[in-house]
Amino acid sequence: MARPVIHHRTPEFSAVLDSARERLKPLFGTRQEVILLASSGTGAMEAAVANLLEPEDHAVFVNGGKFGERWGKLISAHGAIAHEIKVEWGRSVHPEQVDDALRAAPSAQAVFVQASETSTGALHPIAEIGEVARTRGVMLVVDGITSVGVFEQKMDEWGVDALVTGSQKALMLPPGLAMIALSQQALAHARESRAPRYYFDLLRELKAQRDEHTTAYTAAVALVFALNKALDLIYAETLPRVFARQLLMAEATRAAALVLGLRIFPDHPAPGVTAMVTPEGIDSSKLIRYMRDELGVSVQGGQDQMKGRLLRIGHMGYLAPFDMLIAVGALEVALSKAGHGFESGTGVAAVQARINQGI
Amino acid sequence: MARPVIHHRTPEFSAVLDSARERLKPLFGTRQEVILLASSGTGAMEAAVANLLEPEDHAVFVNGGKFGERWGKLISAHGAIAHEIKVEWGRSVHPEQVDDALRAAPSAQAVFVQASETSTGALHPIAEIGEVARTRGVMLVVDGITSVGVFEQKMDEWGVDALVTGSQKALMLPPGLAMIALSQQALAHARESRAPRYYFDLLRELKAQRDEHTTAYTAAVALVFALNKALDLIYAETLPRVFARQLLMAEATRAAALVLGLRIFPDHPAPGVTAMVTPEGIDSSKLIRYMRDELGVSVQGGQDQMKGRLLRIGHMGYLAPFDMLIAVGALEVALSKAGHGFESGTGVAAVQARINQGI
Repeated sequence: MARPVIHHRTPEFSAVLDSARERLKPLFGTRQEVILLASSGTGAMEAAVANLLEPEDHAVFVNGGKFGERWGKLISAHGAIAHEIKVEWGRSVHPEQVDDALRAAPSAQAVFVQASETSTGALHPIAEIGEVARTRGVMLVVDGITSVGVFEQKMDEWGVDALVTGSQKALMLPPGLAMIALSQQALAHARESRAPRYYFDLLRELKAQRDEHTTAYTAAVALVFALNKALDLIYAETLPRVFARQLLMAEATRAAALVLGLRIFPDHPAPGVTAMVTPEGIDSSKLIRYMRDELGVSVQGGQDQMKGRLLRIGHMGYLAPFDMLIAVGALEVALSKAGHGFESGTGVAAVQARINQGI
Repeated sequence: MARPVIHHRTPEFSAVLDSARERLKPLFGTRQEVILLASSGTGAMEAAVANLLEPEDHAVFVNGGKFGERWGKLISAHGAIAHEIKVEWGRSVHPEQVDDALRAAPSAQAVFVQASETSTGALHPIAEIGEVARTRGVMLVVDGITSVGVFEQKMDEWGVDALVTGSQKALMLPPGLAMIALSQQALAHARESRAPRYYFDLLRELKAQRDEHTTAYTAAVALVFALNKALDLIYAETLPRVFARQLLMAEATRAAALVLGLRIFPDHPAPGVTAMVTPEGIDSSKLIRYMRDELGVSVQGGQDQMKGRLLRIGHMGYLAPFDMLIAVGALEVALSKAGHGFESGTGVAAVQARINQGI
């Protein structure tokens, strides 16, 4: 990213763009084209809505956290009718709930869901939801912001019609670049849609990127170069080992939470982020501020109704297992300071024990 | 930009965001808030349309080049009715043409125009158009992508209701960050509008950036840090000297074009980019490819009907007067190679003569 920026309509940029787009396909589990957008992940979520739904269309969305809620807002913002599947925060949606919702909204065109709901750390069962969607003949749109590159995605096999991600999680980049892949069915829908869109017009971007080897509008050039470099790192490590490393960090963090007496919040935890409930009487916001300001270790808190109660440790992207020693070590110091009773060092030991088992 | 990326909901990021937003105001010539968006400039153009026009609204736009044409496409994409003022490429719109168009479309809500039409190098008279818009009681929306930071903008004084720019021109950054400021009148319009928008919802972004000191969605963090640094450079040089340096480069380039026998394309050339017509029988695309591939010097060509006929030299942002010696020197070599008759060295001498006069 520190290289001088070149123009986005040059052979040099085209080569980098082509290479990055091609090498993203295995991370998405697709043979379809991956389209880059100069926006954050929310922009690509909006692109999915704006290209696949028209005003007055009906759609079902899974709301099991902050990002599920965002699907609902996006669908409504575009004049479509959003049918909510309300899922208790921390729970995973059950495929039957999706089936019920589709039965109750027979004119729904699509289901919108997160593969991993970042705000609660819960995993949703995409493969099973894909079967339901296929049976009901509706499209499946998946927010993969904390799943693409974190664990294996099988977009084509699972019947996902749109899969979205962003640059700043498993792809190890600064934010500002988003990616989306569409199935043939989704492309056909987009071609027929008269819904208003311009910057997020995926057909225009697809044409530019696939046929003209550049972007329709000015590209986030530095981030595209950095993406290509990040993919070098990923393929040098190999994709299976990248997935295994991130899973190891997740398991190490969960093991530490258990021995420290912190409940893992989701019933089916995602491998990208571990959300734990802080003990009764301990405000997670204060814990996190102390860790950040006094210990120099950044973890995240809870949002909305879980503010002050959740502590989330991310283990996606540019992190190695021993980074979890740091995170858990700092968490122990902060918990101790906050008066939580536990045997000091046991969290760190749990992390180390999991590392010792190898990937 | 090479610094490790921090989270966008931290006091450290807030301080940088506040500083950058505050220091952009003089570049816009406004006391209003400047809102940052993680997108290219086209995204901010769409934000202006999506927040100020509703479907079925009428709007007038000036089409004197590729970017003027884009306003028309954006207005239509959002379901509003676009009334075109067709301006011959290379010409500046006359304020009376705007007045005529507004008289012919009395229900128009706004006029959309470029301050500087990058595709032709022409300057449009924003102050005068502002008077027309004020008299007719419509909003004025200006694409300032190659004017903000290039020459003085007086958004408030000129009565501009929305002024848009991007990171990759005068602001010296990689692309991927856009900025927009809205007048009080524009904000009132946005508040009443029910037009669909989410990622580009400027009211939500304004609230987040002004009141919460962060962005509504994930920020392009590295670019925001870089923007703040770019503003350090701009204020260290001082804004008047930045404008004077860019104008000097424009004048040096125009002087060189004249002695080399290349016609300056626009009748009122903008200070950010000089567009010149290549001599009869010389394809500008070949000239430009030769300059890039053989001489390592990047300049731009013409678009659409001016493809092969225009050569555009940019002199915005991170460039110093002697860079024009390089650009013109390379242009001389390429023209010579293409068989154009001129006295070698006269272009370079014209640049040097202008540099000698000082700013």
